[in-house]
Amino acid sequence: MKIQSIGGEFELIKRITKKSRVKNVVVGIGDDCAIIQVNGKYLAITTDSVIEDVHFSLKWFSPIQIGKKAIEINVSDIASKGGVPRYALISLILKKDTDVEFVDKLYEGIYETTKKYSIDVIGGNTAHGNQIVIDVCMIGEVRKNNLCLRSSAKPNDAVFVTDELGKSTIGLKLLEKNILHYETLKKAYLEPKSQLEKSGLLSRYANAMIDISDGLASETLHIAEKSKCGVILYKEKIPITNETKSACKLVGKSAYDSALYGGEDYELLFTVPRENLKKIKGAYYIGNVTKQNGVYLVSNGKKKEIKRKGYDHFG
Amino acid sequence: MKIQSIGGEFELIKRITKKSRVKNVVVGIGDDCAIIQVNGKYLAITTDSVIEDVHFSLKWFSPIQIGKKAIEINVSDIASKGGVPRYALISLILKKDTDVEFVDKLYEGIYETTKKYSIDVIGGNTAHGNQIVIDVCMIGEVRKNNLCLRSSAKPNDAVFVTDELGKSTIGLKLLEKNILHYETLKKAYLEPKSQLEKSGLLSRYANAMIDISDGLASETLHIAEKSKCGVILYKEKIPITNETKSACKLVGKSAYDSALYGGEDYELLFTVPRENLKKIKGAYYIGNVTKQNGVYLVSNGKKKEIKRKGYDHFG
Repeated sequence: MKIQSIGGEFELIKRITKKSRVKNVVVGIGDDCAIIQVNGKYLAITTDSVIEDVHFSLKWFSPIQIGKKAIEINVSDIASKGGVPRYALISLILKKDTDVEFVDKLYEGIYETTKKYSIDVIGGNTAHGNQIVIDVCMIGEVRKNNLCLRSSAKPNDAVFVTDELGKSTIGLKLLEKNILHYETLKKAYLEPKSQLEKSGLLSRYANAMIDISDGLASETLHIAEKSKCGVILYKEKIPITNETKSACKLVGKSAYDSALYGGEDYELLFTVPRENLKKIKGAYYIGNVTKQNGVYLVSNGKKKEIKRKGYDHFG
Repeated sequence: MKIQSIGGEFELIKRITKKSRVKNVVVGIGDDCAIIQVNGKYLAITTDSVIEDVHFSLKWFSPIQIGKKAIEINVSDIASKGGVPRYALISLILKKDTDVEFVDKLYEGIYETTKKYSIDVIGGNTAHGNQIVIDVCMIGEVRKNNLCLRSSAKPNDAVFVTDELGKSTIGLKLLEKNILHYETLKKAYLEPKSQLEKSGLLSRYANAMIDISDGLASETLHIAEKSKCGVILYKEKIPITNETKSACKLVGKSAYDSALYGGEDYELLFTVPRENLKKIKGAYYIGNVTKQNGVYLVSNGKKKEIKRKGYDHFG
């Protein structure tokens, strides 16, 4: 039986997930990070990998960019829980004929980014295989007051995103179609940045938070499902730059589909209780949390349920 | 420039390693685990992967055995520092056409082994690629008094191993040559076991410790190098079973070479100060730590320097 036939990646993950049994596990599988408690301190732990020809192509990515991306996407997970990254372990798979210069540049990207965030690379592993894999395990610290889980949204919270969406997925499309210009969009795909700085402030006032690695629709569904509530998104409020709209027109894609179903924006999606609304700066209000289940997109007074999930590795 | 031309894996690792900058990092890159301090508690963190056609072949391994092995080798790293494993994150790469039954059995092996050691699987990641990879990040706790680093050996310490060596590498050879019987040796390769139970006791009395994943020679060299001392090993004292000797004869390999240069035994190699010698039970004395640098093998009064390192992924 193939993974597709049981419903793909999401069903597979449900199938292989067991609940944690230990009281020091604050959050186990099912959020952007696991949260454990060590002598009263909360640690946020995550692992995320970039794989050749899956997450990056050597046609477009420089080795420095690959190194940077491997770190940024893990920082993004820690940031989305309101945490600060501290330590990283790098598990590296290289091809037997990988050039040393490639590895040097890869690590230039890794160390440039870990330095930016004051992360210590404390360990790792090196092996050979038939495609390049950079698998990062990252450990951060979270103040209990700042912890923002997928499951912490409350009905009547306002829903925000930190910045414009849909850039990265359309950036990839432009590269694939070999279209000139639109450097901002291509860079959004090639050099994603975590929103750690923003999360430091926002996590003090937000209830739930998640990073948008898999499209706004998928991440909103995660928050709604884990928080046992619903969300209404206002289509016209979803921030999309004119450049993204223009590029989408050029390649024949819907800009809103790019924002809703495109991946790798690494912006933060978060919900805020009404009493904290005045504290939120530098983010876009896009909707509300509802008591009733279901995620809906409202446009010109029409309401459409969003059911589609994000990228499926086995779809 | 290829990795081979700069001297292989070991030189590559030196090249990409930077020293830790933070005072909470007790041990960074260069030991079996990193050790960090969190509110006064020591955590041991490691990452190790098993890769299809590198660490396992589907010709010989059942999926349950692959799952078990992925956990055992990480527990072995934690055990070798005197720690107790607590949490694991599993970063999984599957092929698009991997059967669900394979994944179910793989996780049966993973959960059977994590249950045995009371480890909580708290997170992970799933992606597709063109070979199966199970990359585990494991976090354990270590009492400060039990911490056994590669760098803690002292001149005049006695050197021990927990059990007979060379089984696993010859087990693989038997499988490759399709030779019947010798099930113990094949099982040593297919179902390695960490020495966590022994390490719980031994780490209280040992100075340095390391797990033998890469052959006795390589691991002894690691201890000598990191502890800035030397080691003399007595060849005739290296424990090797008669079965191993008989199988080695059959396939035309030296039994001592299997012990010294064969991988994946997952026994513990450790050094003990003289005053603790009486406390050591269930282990084999094989040599001594010396003030003078260099690792030597003594046999019938003749002394030979050991320089060869272990398995090189890019050799």
